[in-house]
Amino acid sequence: MNQYRSNARSDCQDCRLCEAVAQQSDEERIRTVVRETVLRVLGDQATAQPGFELIVGVSARHLQIPVDDFGMLYGEGHTLTLERELSGPGEFAARETVTIVGPNLRALQGVRILGPCRSGTQIELAPTDGVYLGLTLPMRASGDISGSAPLTLIGPKGALYLNEGAIRADRHIHISPEDASRYGVTDGQRIRVEAPGPAGVVFNQVRIRVNKGFRQPVMHIDTDDGNSAGLKCGDGIRAIL
Amino acid sequence: MNQYRSNARSDCQDCRLCEAVAQQSDEERIRTVVRETVLRVLGDQATAQPGFELIVGVSARHLQIPVDDFGMLYGEGHTLTLERELSGPGEFAARETVTIVGPNLRALQGVRILGPCRSGTQIELAPTDGVYLGLTLPMRASGDISGSAPLTLIGPKGALYLNEGAIRADRHIHISPEDASRYGVTDGQRIRVEAPGPAGVVFNQVRIRVNKGFRQPVMHIDTDDGNSAGLKCGDGIRAIL
Repeated sequence: MNQYRSNARSDCQDCRLCEAVAQQSDEERIRTVVRETVLRVLGDQATAQPGFELIVGVSARHLQIPVDDFGMLYGEGHTLTLERELSGPGEFAARETVTIVGPNLRALQGVRILGPCRSGTQIELAPTDGVYLGLTLPMRASGDISGSAPLTLIGPKGALYLNEGAIRADRHIHISPEDASRYGVTDGQRIRVEAPGPAGVVFNQVRIRVNKGFRQPVMHIDTDDGNSAGLKCGDGIRAIL
Repeated sequence: MNQYRSNARSDCQDCRLCEAVAQQSDEERIRTVVRETVLRVLGDQATAQPGFELIVGVSARHLQIPVDDFGMLYGEGHTLTLERELSGPGEFAARETVTIVGPNLRALQGVRILGPCRSGTQIELAPTDGVYLGLTLPMRASGDISGSAPLTLIGPKGALYLNEGAIRADRHIHISPEDASRYGVTDGQRIRVEAPGPAGVVFNQVRIRVNKGFRQPVMHIDTDDGNSAGLKCGDGIRAIL
């Protein structure tokens, strides 16, 4: 290795490699030289990562609620009114909203209900909302509310104290079975997604959710994620496999 | 290459490599084999990334203000009162706060002033604050406020309308010259920092700020970043070089 080391120092233009090699053991030197050589031969191909393009959906705070609970807040027999259709099959933002009050007795007004009515009351909040309301929100998949944070809901006809129900939704990608197969991802798998720009980040554990009702792949994140990474609804990002 | 291809298909256990190689041109085949071989020989070393450990400082919304502007809000001759010392040399959180009002006329109360008084009024807000106040915050290094967002400050003795001054501070690392030299980073350089855990992210462009007044390396982020990534003050993270 002395011969190599000597040649490298006198002839080579790349001081970084030579410096690194000079301070290493024989085995380390071989590894360094092989790695650097391969990286140079392959160029960008050595670090290029497979993946696919998708778009962003930023979810503002909202709740899902069964008919009984909704009746307690808005009066028996009242039904949800369509305000705007959402990307999920049959899902919509309702005209109806509630006020929520946390354990510190602070309130957030105008929290929108998503329809249709479901089998459990669940409130999805961003961590910043949790700080404001005095809640520690567990990061969960939608529907997994056991042991989650307590909260009070108030509607025009009544109030409802919940021992649990407030979560931070985990980051997830809605994708069709066809696209999942095309990109080689499976339901429940966690992948990384990169957001570009000066405020850009890589989200490390984004859960794949496969359902035939989903059209183009969409990553759903909360407002803290969107605001932190400079992302808004419809922005293009890249999944890294 | 036919010989290699044939051998690979019949003898090798690694179907992924063989499959990939079989579908490629001669040049691509060579590259694939070299890359896969090097990755196997090097193991984790091929992907291990150099870096260093540091801790997190999450900055809540705050402002810096010169003596004249402070006098307009709190009365001429009033001086800032020490509430709590901060990590920067001579810096402190003051007891005095202001209310800020955005272009949409919504208000945030209790925004803390950082001392000592400086040469320009600058308000550092998280993007979530900007959404609430109706502001688009440019992401800037502290002190770079030209063309930034307008805002009104209100104190007990007066109000101050600013044509500019509200920014989102860029993510940055405070580091001493000794540590910067030890880790091979320079003032103004941008590096990546990884936050662990299920809410973890990689921040892509974190600016290095070298100053002899800084003790241990600290990454300063805003509350949106901290809440998005599940980070709080004092948490340990890793810079990736």
